Amino acid sequence: MQKIDVGKKILSANEEYALRNNRFLAEHKILCLNMISSPGSGKTTILTRTISELKGKIKIGVIEGDIQTDIDTQRIKTTGAPAVQINTNGACHLSAAQVNSALGKLPIKKLDLIFIENVGNLVCPSAFELGENYKIVVLSVPEGDDKPAKYPAIFAKSKVLLINKIDLLKAPSPVDFDIERVKTDARKLNKGIEIFPVSAKTGSGFAEWCQWLAKSVKNLYS
Amino acid sequence: MQKIDVGKKILSANEEYALRNNRFLAEHKILCLNMISSPGSGKTTILTRTISELKGKIKIGVIEGDIQTDIDTQRIKTTGAPAVQINTNGACHLSAAQVNSALGKLPIKKLDLIFIENVGNLVCPSAFELGENYKIVVLSVPEGDDKPAKYPAIFAKSKVLLINKIDLLKAPSPVDFDIERVKTDARKLNKGIEIFPVSAKTGSGFAEWCQWLAKSVKNLYS
Repeated sequence: MQKIDVGKKILSANEEYALRNNRFLAEHKILCLNMISSPGSGKTTILTRTISELKGKIKIGVIEGDIQTDIDTQRIKTTGAPAVQINTNGACHLSAAQVNSALGKLPIKKLDLIFIENVGNLVCPSAFELGENYKIVVLSVPEGDDKPAKYPAIFAKSKVLLINKIDLLKAPSPVDFDIERVKTDARKLNKGIEIFPVSAKTGSGFAEWCQWLAKSVKNLYS
Repeated sequence: MQKIDVGKKILSANEEYALRNNRFLAEHKILCLNMISSPGSGKTTILTRTISELKGKIKIGVIEGDIQTDIDTQRIKTTGAPAVQINTNGACHLSAAQVNSALGKLPIKKLDLIFIENVGNLVCPSAFELGENYKIVVLSVPEGDDKPAKYPAIFAKSKVLLINKIDLLKAPSPVDFDIERVKTDARKLNKGIEIFPVSAKTGSGFAEWCQWLAKSVKNLYS
Protein backbone atom coordinates (compact mmCIF):
# COMPACT_ATOMS: atom_id res chain seq x y z
CA MET A 1 0.00 0.00 0.00
CA GLN A 2 1.32 3.40 -0.89
CA LYS A 3 1.17 6.19 1.63
CA ILE A 4 0.52 9.71 0.44
CA ASP A 5 1.66 12.49 2.70
CA VAL A 6 -0.29 15.57 1.72
CA GLY A 7 1.99 17.57 4.01
CA LYS A 8 -0.59 19.99 5.27
CA LYS A 9 -3.40 20.03 7.75
CA ILE A 10 -6.82 19.71 6.22
CA LEU A 11 -8.88 22.63 7.46
CA SER A 12 -12.54 22.47 8.43
CA ALA A 13 -14.96 24.82 6.69
CA ASN A 14 -14.95 26.99 9.83
CA GLU A 15 -11.15 27.12 9.93
CA GLU A 16 -11.04 28.07 6.24
CA TYR A 17 -13.34 31.03 6.89
CA ALA A 18 -11.42 31.96 10.05
CA LEU A 19 -8.17 32.06 8.09
CA ARG A 20 -9.82 34.16 5.39
CA ASN A 21 -11.16 36.61 8.01
CA ASN A 22 -7.76 36.79 9.69
CA ARG A 23 -6.00 37.65 6.41
CA PHE A 24 -8.63 40.23 5.53
CA LEU A 25 -8.25 41.92 8.94
CA ALA A 26 -4.43 41.88 8.65
CA GLU A 27 -4.61 43.50 5.20
CA HIS A 28 -6.64 46.31 6.71
CA LYS A 29 -4.46 46.46 9.87
CA ILE A 30 -7.42 45.96 12.15
CA LEU A 31 -7.17 44.42 15.61
CA CYS A 32 -10.04 41.97 16.14
CA LEU A 33 -11.14 40.72 19.58
CA ASN A 34 -13.60 37.89 20.16
CA MET A 35 -15.45 38.55 23.44
CA ILE A 36 -16.81 35.48 25.22
CA SER A 37 -18.77 35.07 28.48
CA SER A 38 -21.95 33.78 30.03
CA PRO A 39 -25.16 35.68 29.31
CA GLY A 40 -25.42 38.78 31.45
CA SER A 41 -21.78 39.22 32.46
CA GLY A 42 -21.90 42.72 30.97
CA LYS A 43 -20.26 42.38 27.53
CA THR A 44 -22.43 45.01 25.84
CA THR A 45 -22.11 47.48 28.73
CA ILE A 46 -18.33 47.01 28.67
CA LEU A 47 -18.37 47.74 24.93
CA THR A 48 -20.51 50.88 25.14
CA ARG A 49 -18.23 52.31 27.86
CA THR A 50 -15.05 51.26 26.04
CA ILE A 51 -16.24 52.93 22.82
CA SER A 52 -17.08 56.14 24.71
CA GLU A 53 -13.76 56.21 26.57
CA LEU A 54 -11.75 55.72 23.34
CA LYS A 55 -13.80 58.15 21.21
CA GLY A 56 -11.51 60.29 19.06
CA LYS A 57 -8.55 57.95 19.71
CA ILE A 58 -9.45 54.53 18.31
CA LYS A 59 -12.12 53.83 15.70
CA ILE A 60 -14.17 50.85 16.83
CA GLY A 61 -16.73 48.67 15.05
CA VAL A 62 -18.80 45.86 16.57
CA ILE A 63 -20.21 42.55 15.33
CA GLU A 64 -23.01 41.44 17.64
CA GLY A 65 -23.86 37.75 17.96
CA ASP A 66 -27.18 36.79 19.52
CA ILE A 67 -29.54 33.88 19.26
CA GLN A 68 -32.48 36.27 18.87
CA THR A 69 -33.17 40.03 18.83
CA ASP A 70 -31.07 43.07 17.91
CA ILE A 71 -31.24 44.58 21.41
CA ASP A 72 -27.44 44.68 21.72
CA THR A 73 -26.83 46.25 18.30
CA GLN A 74 -29.29 49.02 19.14
CA ARG A 75 -27.38 49.64 22.39
CA ILE A 76 -24.03 49.83 20.55
CA LYS A 77 -25.45 52.22 17.94
CA THR A 78 -26.35 54.77 20.63
CA THR A 79 -22.57 55.32 20.99
CA GLY A 80 -22.28 56.25 17.30
CA ALA A 81 -20.10 53.20 16.50
CA PRO A 82 -21.01 51.05 13.49
CA ALA A 83 -22.50 47.68 14.47
CA VAL A 84 -23.80 44.64 12.58
CA GLN A 85 -26.15 42.08 14.13
CA ILE A 86 -25.89 38.33 13.52
CA ASN A 87 -28.80 36.19 14.76
CA THR A 88 -27.84 32.54 15.11
CA ASN A 89 -31.47 31.38 15.50
CA GLY A 90 -30.69 28.85 18.19
CA ALA A 91 -27.01 28.11 17.60
CA CYS A 92 -24.85 28.46 20.72
CA HIS A 93 -21.85 30.21 19.09
CA LEU A 94 -20.89 32.37 16.11
CA SER A 95 -19.27 30.76 13.07
CA ALA A 96 -16.42 32.22 11.03
CA ALA A 97 -18.69 32.25 7.95
CA GLN A 98 -21.20 34.47 9.77
CA VAL A 99 -18.39 36.82 10.81
CA ASN A 100 -17.11 36.85 7.22
CA SER A 101 -20.48 38.05 6.03
CA ALA A 102 -20.72 40.68 8.80
CA LEU A 103 -17.24 42.05 8.01
CA GLY A 104 -18.53 42.95 4.54
CA LYS A 105 -21.17 45.16 6.12
CA LEU A 106 -18.82 47.25 8.31
CA PRO A 107 -17.00 50.39 7.04
CA ILE A 108 -13.68 48.52 7.22
CA LYS A 109 -11.43 51.29 5.91
CA LYS A 110 -12.51 53.57 8.74
CA LEU A 111 -11.77 51.12 11.60
CA ASP A 112 -8.80 50.33 13.88
CA LEU A 113 -10.48 47.76 16.11
CA ILE A 114 -13.38 45.32 15.75
CA PHE A 115 -15.04 43.66 18.71
CA ILE A 116 -16.99 40.49 18.06
CA GLU A 117 -19.48 40.00 20.88
CA ASN A 118 -20.15 36.26 20.79
CA VAL A 119 -23.38 34.51 21.88
CA GLY A 120 -23.62 34.45 25.70
CA ASN A 121 -22.15 31.03 26.52
CA LEU A 122 -19.04 30.16 28.52
CA VAL A 123 -18.56 26.80 26.78
CA CYS A 124 -19.26 26.45 23.05
CA PRO A 125 -17.79 29.67 21.55
CA SER A 126 -14.33 28.79 22.91
CA ALA A 127 -14.07 25.94 20.37
CA PHE A 128 -14.67 28.02 17.21
CA GLU A 129 -12.01 30.33 15.77
CA LEU A 130 -13.50 33.34 13.99
CA GLY A 131 -10.28 34.84 12.62
CA GLU A 132 -9.75 37.12 15.63
CA ASN A 133 -6.35 38.12 17.00
CA TYR A 134 -7.32 37.41 20.59
CA LYS A 135 -10.12 36.06 22.71
CA ILE A 136 -11.29 38.15 25.69
CA VAL A 137 -13.16 36.32 28.45
CA VAL A 138 -15.47 38.24 30.78
CA LEU A 139 -16.40 36.89 34.22
CA SER A 140 -18.67 38.97 36.43
CA VAL A 141 -18.51 38.95 40.22
CA PRO A 142 -22.01 37.50 40.87
CA GLU A 143 -21.19 34.45 38.70
CA GLY A 144 -18.85 33.20 41.45
CA ASP A 145 -15.14 32.67 41.89
CA ASP A 146 -15.16 28.95 40.96
CA LYS A 147 -15.72 29.53 37.25
CA PRO A 148 -12.11 29.24 35.93
CA ALA A 149 -11.88 25.82 37.67
CA LYS A 150 -15.26 24.67 36.36
CA TYR A 151 -15.08 26.07 32.79
CA PRO A 152 -11.33 25.97 32.09
CA ALA A 153 -11.22 25.98 28.25
CA ILE A 154 -12.02 29.64 27.63
CA PHE A 155 -9.75 30.85 30.44
CA ALA A 156 -6.90 28.77 28.97
CA LYS A 157 -7.38 30.29 25.49
CA SER A 158 -7.95 33.98 26.25
CA LYS A 159 -5.44 36.80 26.06
CA VAL A 160 -7.37 38.90 28.58
CA LEU A 161 -9.70 38.23 31.51
CA LEU A 162 -12.02 41.10 32.42
CA ILE A 163 -13.47 40.62 35.91
CA ASN A 164 -16.61 42.78 35.67
CA LYS A 165 -19.08 44.21 38.22
CA ILE A 166 -16.41 44.75 40.88
CA ASP A 167 -18.69 47.46 42.32
CA LEU A 168 -20.64 44.51 43.82
CA LEU A 169 -17.61 43.67 46.00
CA LYS A 170 -18.14 46.80 48.10
CA ALA A 171 -19.82 47.26 51.42
CA PRO A 172 -22.51 47.38 52.79
CA SER A 173 -23.56 44.02 51.28
CA PRO A 174 -20.69 42.62 49.22
CA VAL A 175 -21.23 39.57 47.00
CA ASP A 176 -19.11 36.56 48.13
CA PHE A 177 -16.29 36.44 45.59
CA ASP A 178 -12.60 35.80 46.16
CA ILE A 179 -10.89 37.79 43.40
CA GLU A 180 -7.47 36.32 44.31
CA ARG A 181 -8.81 32.78 43.78
CA VAL A 182 -9.98 33.78 40.28
CA LYS A 183 -6.61 35.30 39.41
CA THR A 184 -4.70 32.28 40.74
CA ASP A 185 -6.94 29.73 39.00
CA ALA A 186 -6.88 31.65 35.69
CA ARG A 187 -3.06 31.94 35.79
CA LYS A 188 -2.74 28.20 36.53
CA LEU A 189 -4.54 27.60 33.21
CA ASN A 190 -2.87 30.43 31.33
CA LYS A 191 0.34 31.86 32.72
CA GLY A 192 0.43 35.05 30.64
CA ILE A 193 -3.25 36.04 30.80
CA GLU A 194 -3.80 39.79 31.35
CA ILE A 195 -6.36 40.42 34.09
CA PHE A 196 -8.29 43.67 34.50
CA PRO A 197 -10.85 44.02 37.32
CA VAL A 198 -13.44 46.53 36.06
CA SER A 199 -16.89 47.90 36.63
CA ALA A 200 -18.67 48.86 33.44
CA LYS A 201 -21.23 50.58 35.66
CA THR A 202 -18.87 52.93 37.52
CA GLY A 203 -15.93 52.98 35.08
CA SER A 204 -13.51 51.60 37.66
CA GLY A 205 -10.51 49.88 36.01
CA PHE A 206 -11.32 51.19 32.52
CA ALA A 207 -8.19 53.37 32.31
CA GLU A 208 -5.96 50.26 32.46
CA TRP A 209 -8.15 48.21 30.09
CA CYS A 210 -8.35 51.03 27.52
CA GLN A 211 -4.60 51.60 27.79
CA TRP A 212 -4.04 47.91 26.98
CA LEU A 213 -6.37 48.24 23.98
CA ALA A 214 -4.58 51.35 22.65
CA LYS A 215 -1.18 49.68 23.05
CA SER A 216 -2.40 46.48 21.35
CA VAL A 217 -3.84 48.39 18.37
CA LYS A 218 -0.57 50.30 18.02
CA ASN A 219 1.75 47.29 18.36
CA LEU A 220 -0.15 44.66 16.39
CA TYR A 221 0.96 45.55 12.87
CA SER A 222 4.01 47.72 13.64
CA MET B 1 -42.06 2.02 -5.63
CA GLN B 2 -43.52 0.64 -2.49
CA LYS B 3 -43.87 2.85 0.54
CA ILE B 4 -43.36 1.37 3.94
CA ASP B 5 -44.99 3.20 6.82
CA VAL B 6 -43.19 2.18 9.96
CA GLY B 7 -45.87 3.96 11.93
CA LYS B 8 -43.67 5.25 14.69
CA LYS B 9 -41.16 7.98 15.21
CA ILE B 10 -37.57 6.82 15.06
CA LEU B 11 -35.91 7.92 18.26
CA SER B 12 -32.38 9.23 18.54
CA ALA B 13 -30.01 7.44 20.92
CA ASN B 14 -30.50 10.29 23.39
CA GLU B 15 -34.28 10.06 23.16
CA GLU B 16 -34.12 6.28 23.71
CA TYR B 17 -32.17 6.79 26.92
CA ALA B 18 -34.46 9.65 27.99
CA LEU B 19 -37.50 7.42 27.57
CA ARG B 20 -35.79 4.64 29.51
CA ASN B 21 -34.91 7.07 32.35
CA ASN B 22 -38.45 8.42 32.39
CA ARG B 23 -39.96 4.93 32.72
CA PHE B 24 -37.48 3.99 35.44
CA LEU B 25 -38.34 7.14 37.43
CA ALA B 26 -42.08 6.52 37.00
CA GLU B 27 -41.70 2.93 38.25
CA HIS B 28 -40.08 4.28 41.40
CA LYS B 29 -42.56 7.19 41.67
CA ILE B 30 -39.80 9.76 41.71
CA LEU B 31 -40.25 13.35 40.52
CA CYS B 32 -37.25 14.40 38.41
CA LEU B 33 -36.40 18.04 37.67
CA ASN B 34 -33.77 19.16 35.15
CA MET B 35 -32.31 22.48 36.33
CA ILE B 36 -30.85 24.72 33.63
CA SER B 37 -29.21 28.14 33.76
CA SER B 38 -26.07 30.10 32.95
CA PRO B 39 -22.98 29.43 35.06
CA GLY B 40 -23.19 31.22 38.39
CA SER B 41 -26.94 31.86 38.58
CA GLY B 42 -26.97 30.00 41.89
CA LYS B 43 -28.25 26.49 41.04
CA THR B 44 -26.15 24.70 43.66
CA THR B 45 -26.96 27.23 46.39
CA ILE B 46 -30.66 26.91 45.55
CA LEU B 47 -30.32 23.13 45.88
CA THR B 48 -28.50 23.16 49.21
CA ARG B 49 -31.12 25.49 50.69
CA THR B 50 -34.02 23.54 49.17
CA ILE B 51 -32.68 20.26 50.59
CA SER B 52 -32.30 21.83 54.05
CA GLU B 53 -35.78 23.38 54.00
CA LEU B 54 -37.40 20.07 52.98
CA LYS B 55 -35.39 17.86 55.33
CA GLY B 56 -37.63 15.27 57.01
CA LYS B 57 -40.43 15.96 54.50
CA ILE B 58 -39.10 15.04 51.03
CA LYS B 59 -36.14 12.77 50.32
CA ILE B 60 -33.98 14.41 47.67
CA GLY B 61 -31.07 13.12 45.55
CA VAL B 62 -28.93 15.13 43.14
CA ILE B 63 -27.14 14.41 39.86
CA GLU B 64 -24.49 17.06 39.29
CA GLY B 65 -23.36 17.89 35.75
CA ASP B 66 -20.15 19.83 35.29
CA ILE B 67 -17.52 20.10 32.60
CA GLN B 68 -14.78 19.67 35.21
CA THR B 69 -14.40 19.27 39.01
CA ASP B 70 -16.66 17.83 41.69
CA ILE B 71 -16.96 21.12 43.60
CA ASP B 72 -20.77 21.08 43.36
CA THR B 73 -21.18 17.46 44.50
CA GLN B 74 -19.04 18.20 47.56
CA ARG B 75 -21.30 21.18 48.33
CA ILE B 76 -24.45 19.04 48.01
CA LYS B 77 -23.00 16.29 50.22
CA THR B 78 -22.59 18.76 53.12
CA THR B 79 -26.42 18.72 53.35
CA GLY B 80 -26.43 14.94 53.82
CA ALA B 81 -28.26 14.31 50.52
CA PRO B 82 -26.87 11.67 48.15
CA ALA B 83 -25.21 13.16 45.07
CA VAL B 84 -23.50 11.75 41.97
CA GLN B 85 -21.09 13.78 39.84
CA ILE B 86 -20.98 13.60 36.04
CA ASN B 87 -18.03 15.32 34.32
CA THR B 88 -18.71 16.01 30.66
CA ASN B 89 -15.04 16.83 29.90
CA GLY B 90 -15.85 19.73 27.61
CA ALA B 91 -19.39 18.91 26.46
CA CYS B 92 -21.85 21.75 26.95
CA HIS B 93 -24.81 19.70 28.21
CA LEU B 94 -25.68 16.42 29.94
CA SER B 95 -26.88 13.46 27.87
CA ALA B 96 -29.62 11.01 28.83
CA ALA B 97 -27.07 8.16 28.75
CA GLN B 98 -24.94 9.93 31.37
CA VAL B 99 -28.03 10.44 33.54
CA ASN B 100 -28.95 6.77 33.07
CA SER B 101 -25.60 5.74 34.45
CA ALA B 102 -25.85 8.20 37.37
CA LEU B 103 -29.35 6.95 38.31
CA GLY B 104 -27.80 3.54 38.94
CA LYS B 105 -25.52 5.08 41.57
CA LEU B 106 -28.23 6.79 43.64
CA PRO B 107 -30.18 5.03 46.44
CA ILE B 108 -33.33 5.12 44.29
CA LYS B 109 -35.67 3.32 46.67
CA LYS B 110 -35.07 5.95 49.34
CA LEU B 111 -35.87 8.99 47.16
CA ASP B 112 -38.97 11.10 46.34
CA LEU B 113 -37.31 13.74 44.19
CA ILE B 114 -34.18 13.91 42.02
CA PHE B 115 -32.69 17.19 40.84
CA ILE B 116 -30.41 17.06 37.81
CA GLU B 117 -28.17 20.13 37.86
CA ASN B 118 -27.19 20.52 34.22
CA VAL B 119 -23.94 22.08 32.92
CA GLY B 120 -24.05 25.88 33.28
CA ASN B 121 -25.31 26.97 29.87
CA LEU B 122 -28.50 28.80 28.93
CA VAL B 123 -28.53 27.41 25.37
CA CYS B 124 -27.46 23.82 24.70
CA PRO B 125 -29.04 21.83 27.57
CA SER B 126 -32.51 22.98 26.51
CA ALA B 127 -32.29 20.77 23.40
CA PHE B 128 -31.57 17.46 25.18
CA GLU B 129 -34.28 15.54 27.04
CA LEU B 130 -32.89 13.57 29.97
CA GLY B 131 -36.07 11.76 31.01
CA GLU B 132 -37.06 14.44 33.53
CA ASN B 133 -40.65 15.36 34.37
CA TYR B 134 -40.01 19.09 34.14
CA LYS B 135 -37.30 21.59 33.29
CA ILE B 136 -36.61 24.37 35.79
CA VAL B 137 -34.86 27.49 34.45
CA VAL B 138 -32.96 29.77 36.83
CA LEU B 139 -32.25 33.41 35.95
CA SER B 140 -30.38 35.54 38.47
CA VAL B 141 -30.92 39.28 38.84
CA PRO B 142 -27.38 40.40 37.82
CA GLU B 143 -27.72 38.54 34.49
CA GLY B 144 -30.19 41.19 33.33
CA ASP B 145 -33.86 41.39 32.49
CA ASP B 146 -33.46 40.91 28.72
CA LYS B 147 -32.58 37.20 28.93
CA PRO B 148 -36.02 35.63 28.15
CA ALA B 149 -36.12 37.73 24.95
CA LYS B 150 -32.55 36.86 23.98
CA TYR B 151 -32.50 33.15 24.97
CA PRO B 152 -36.14 32.13 24.44
CA ALA B 153 -35.89 28.33 24.02
CA ILE B 154 -35.35 27.36 27.64
CA PHE B 155 -37.98 29.81 28.93
CA ALA B 156 -40.48 28.36 26.47
CA LYS B 157 -39.80 24.79 27.61
CA SER B 158 -39.62 25.15 31.41
CA LYS B 159 -42.33 24.42 33.93
CA VAL B 160 -40.84 26.83 36.48
CA LEU B 161 -38.76 30.00 36.34
CA LEU B 162 -36.79 30.77 39.50
CA ILE B 163 -35.64 34.40 39.55
CA ASN B 164 -32.70 34.18 41.94
CA LYS B 165 -30.60 36.74 43.88
CA ILE B 166 -33.55 39.09 44.44
CA ASP B 167 -31.65 40.38 47.50
CA LEU B 168 -29.62 42.38 44.94
CA LEU B 169 -32.74 44.39 44.04
CA LYS B 170 -32.68 46.13 47.39
CA ALA B 171 -31.39 49.54 48.40
CA PRO B 172 -28.86 51.07 48.94
CA SER B 173 -27.39 50.08 45.53
CA PRO B 174 -29.92 47.94 43.65
CA VAL B 175 -28.90 46.14 40.45
CA ASP B 176 -30.87 47.44 37.41
CA PHE B 177 -33.41 44.70 36.73
CA ASP B 178 -37.07 45.03 35.80
CA ILE B 179 -38.67 41.94 37.31
CA GLU B 180 -42.01 42.71 35.63
CA ARG B 181 -40.32 42.71 32.21
CA VAL B 182 -38.93 39.23 32.92
CA LYS B 183 -42.32 37.91 34.01
CA THR B 184 -44.09 39.41 30.98
CA ASP B 185 -41.48 38.17 28.48
CA ALA B 186 -41.40 34.67 30.02
CA ARG B 187 -45.21 34.41 29.94
CA LYS B 188 -45.28 35.55 26.30
CA LEU B 189 -43.13 32.49 25.51
CA ASN B 190 -44.85 30.16 27.96
CA LYS B 191 -48.29 31.11 29.22
CA GLY B 192 -48.47 28.66 32.13
CA ILE B 193 -44.92 29.01 33.48
CA GLU B 194 -44.72 29.15 37.30
CA ILE B 195 -42.51 32.02 38.48
CA PHE B 196 -40.89 32.20 41.92
CA PRO B 197 -38.67 35.17 42.81
CA VAL B 198 -36.20 33.86 45.41
CA SER B 199 -32.93 34.56 47.16
CA ALA B 200 -30.94 31.43 47.93
CA LYS B 201 -28.75 33.66 50.12
CA THR B 202 -31.48 35.04 52.40
CA GLY B 203 -34.17 32.36 51.91
CA SER B 204 -36.70 34.86 50.60
CA GLY B 205 -39.36 33.16 48.43
CA PHE B 206 -38.34 29.63 49.45
CA ALA B 207 -41.60 28.91 51.27
CA GLU B 208 -43.57 29.23 48.00
CA TRP B 209 -40.99 27.30 45.94
CA CYS B 210 -40.79 24.45 48.46
CA GLN B 211 -44.59 24.35 48.69
CA TRP B 212 -44.74 23.92 44.89
CA LEU B 213 -42.17 21.09 45.11
CA ALA B 214 -44.08 19.29 47.88
CA LYS B 215 -47.34 19.60 45.95
CA SER B 216 -45.71 18.37 42.72
CA VAL B 217 -44.15 15.32 44.42
CA LYS B 218 -47.52 14.49 45.96
CA ASN B 219 -49.60 14.96 42.79
CA LEU B 220 -47.30 13.46 40.18
CA TYR B 221 -48.15 9.79 40.59
CA SER B 222 -51.39 10.07 42.55
